[in-house]
Amino acid sequence: MLRDEVGLRSETVRRTNLSVILRELHARGALSRSELVVRSRLTRTAIRGLVGELVASGLATETRPALDGTPGRPSPIVRPDPLGATVLALDIEVDSIAAAIVGLGGQIIDQVRVNRPRRESSVRRIVADLARLADTIGADGPSPRTHVGIGVAVVGVVRRSDGVVSMAPNLGWVDVGLREALVEVFGDDVPIHVANEADLAALAESRRGVAVGVRDVLFLSGEVGVGGGIIVDGEPFTGAAGYSGEVGHMPINPAGLQCRCGAVGCWETEAGSESLLRRAGRSPVGGRAAVDALVAEAEGGSADALRALEETGRWIGIGVAGLVNLLDPTLVVFGGLFQRIHPFVAPTVEAELDRRALAAPRRLVRVVPSGLGVEASLLGAAELAMEPLLADPAMWMRSREGSARYSEPGFRRVVA
Amino acid sequence: MLRDEVGLRSETVRRTNLSVILRELHARGALSRSELVVRSRLTRTAIRGLVGELVASGLATETRPALDGTPGRPSPIVRPDPLGATVLALDIEVDSIAAAIVGLGGQIIDQVRVNRPRRESSVRRIVADLARLADTIGADGPSPRTHVGIGVAVVGVVRRSDGVVSMAPNLGWVDVGLREALVEVFGDDVPIHVANEADLAALAESRRGVAVGVRDVLFLSGEVGVGGGIIVDGEPFTGAAGYSGEVGHMPINPAGLQCRCGAVGCWETEAGSESLLRRAGRSPVGGRAAVDALVAEAEGGSADALRALEETGRWIGIGVAGLVNLLDPTLVVFGGLFQRIHPFVAPTVEAELDRRALAAPRRLVRVVPSGLGVEASLLGAAELAMEPLLADPAMWMRSREGSARYSEPGFRRVVA
Repeated sequence: MLRDEVGLRSETVRRTNLSVILRELHARGALSRSELVVRSRLTRTAIRGLVGELVASGLATETRPALDGTPGRPSPIVRPDPLGATVLALDIEVDSIAAAIVGLGGQIIDQVRVNRPRRESSVRRIVADLARLADTIGADGPSPRTHVGIGVAVVGVVRRSDGVVSMAPNLGWVDVGLREALVEVFGDDVPIHVANEADLAALAESRRGVAVGVRDVLFLSGEVGVGGGIIVDGEPFTGAAGYSGEVGHMPINPAGLQCRCGAVGCWETEAGSESLLRRAGRSPVGGRAAVDALVAEAEGGSADALRALEETGRWIGIGVAGLVNLLDPTLVVFGGLFQRIHPFVAPTVEAELDRRALAAPRRLVRVVPSGLGVEASLLGAAELAMEPLLADPAMWMRSREGSARYSEPGFRRVVA
Repeated sequence: MLRDEVGLRSETVRRTNLSVILRELHARGALSRSELVVRSRLTRTAIRGLVGELVASGLATETRPALDGTPGRPSPIVRPDPLGATVLALDIEVDSIAAAIVGLGGQIIDQVRVNRPRRESSVRRIVADLARLADTIGADGPSPRTHVGIGVAVVGVVRRSDGVVSMAPNLGWVDVGLREALVEVFGDDVPIHVANEADLAALAESRRGVAVGVRDVLFLSGEVGVGGGIIVDGEPFTGAAGYSGEVGHMPINPAGLQCRCGAVGCWETEAGSESLLRRAGRSPVGGRAAVDALVAEAEGGSADALRALEETGRWIGIGVAGLVNLLDPTLVVFGGLFQRIHPFVAPTVEAELDRRALAAPRRLVRVVPSGLGVEASLLGAAELAMEPLLADPAMWMRSREGSARYSEPGFRRVVA
């Protein structure tokens, strides 16, 4: 069934089919024309025409394999061209920022991450730092003529429509116009898309990580806060405005601690890094380094560290059980802190699932650590920026033919 | 974008367009051909052909309005024919069962609900009672030649693929093959679809009730347990197997009461009817009648009743706040007990949302009582049974032409 309930005209059919083929190539890399016929259920003739269009526009290349002795002509191999369409991906974490240039097919062309002091987190300062970072990788990058867009991941609650961050407690942001600030520095020659980092990590895991091919996925990213990204029937679930997945603010302990959001007993007050550190008798504000030290001690057998991890695992498990009952995913992916402590908390989490999740969804679900690690959000930002091209390659091709929209120097203008 | 990532062949296009037109007629009733052109964005010629097919197959009728003096010929009016395609809808609640015959366009042709004792809830007994109930409305119903399917709502956790109820604590069911039991009595001449009652109530509210036209909806049905149904971007969200929306089993108070599901402190232990009655000093097992009595006393100004309602409202609000943070809906619909007590709990629920929901999703969300009341699940069951016809009218037309599949006496065979 179509999500968008309008009829199909023949021009729509061509555009949809181009999109189907380009998505296949972007997701899977090299495919023979025969494989494309099978996967798309289109005719050979249709595939030949569509691939021809993609090749002509520089989005794909085609080679004919040498005869290998078997009867018949081997089917030509079609590949996405990474330099045919590229995106700039940016990531704003609490303690670091990152940038990457990613090509069609998901190839990372260049990538850099730098730590930055948490207290210097005004939007103006962070955006300026991002521009400098983008410059360092843009200089040797592909021609900006190929830039499809800029995707930005941020540790905050984001309105998708205009990139306003309504709340990012760990950056001290309230109602910050992030997209607007980015446009001032990067220009508006290529579209800029902003989204929550956990939502984007979920997208990346479902396209490139441990959740490839899984229809119903819950990605949980624990740090100081706990973020969530939800994949429903293969598609990112954003909620009405992009605010969904704020799992850290499920009320889980009404007799619990004050949360940064203003409420009491939110999940992240029990499952985030601060309570883990507090339980082990450490300063709760030590961040990633303190958590790494704690994990190292646990590996060395420290009883305090192991106890703190187990109790934190119990609270993680309680929350995951509720989410499993609510969302019925087949895969829960642990990112961030949750990924790093996964080996220690896994048994406790599984035990809480046994105790608290309903038998039926419990039987279906597995909990696994992230396949992409700390760069999941950055890769998700790249997927977000590539999405308009994947959804409608025909429009992008047309925009490149006549106008100069994509031939402007795009984000590299900031280098000057 | 297509959910199902395959290409479009021309036969697919015709089938998709028939589906688009039939959905419009089913959802909106009478529409002029011109309105269909606008809504579907198809050409006049295409609409004429598609409507012609629907009329020829008995799914729609067309009339030309009299000239009204304005220039030009008025556009013909197309109507869904309620007797062109009908479904049998069944509903299994804790204290009652119901049956209805519903026609294309949502017209209720006949409908009946009867109370039944809670303790006689073996699946065999309930299915036999449903068959008798269906008989009472089937006798004067339309020709069984038009029956598209049977839709069944049940107060339990349902696997959609085979209609196994993995858990229905208030019926005492564990892993009960409900669909199988229904097939034994109703035969398998028409397809039987089973789903959770709150999921189906959500579907009905989004098609026929207060949530028409709203893309992101959370339906909450409070009774002894608390059920939930989620609409994501206009589509029912079922989870991997159909188990999603079990909001009643979100862990909300780890220091709380034992839940029927085996866990501790689930939302329904604080927000369901038993805790409401207990807080007012009543026997918790009084069911709907006891709640109605309590509400009547509250209307009369009873302090005990008002206090119990307020405290229950507080717990309802805590849970709703967490769900708003998680799902970012624009509309929360209260059904069942939540609907009946809505006037008393609304201020407390809104206050908890102000305290506990994140500012951004909080600003977007409204909480309203159900528009369909106790029959929401039954109407949702009808929508479920109609769905295969709406998704692919062409296949249904073909199945009726040649074979006798839909001309068998279907469920009425049980009358004999």
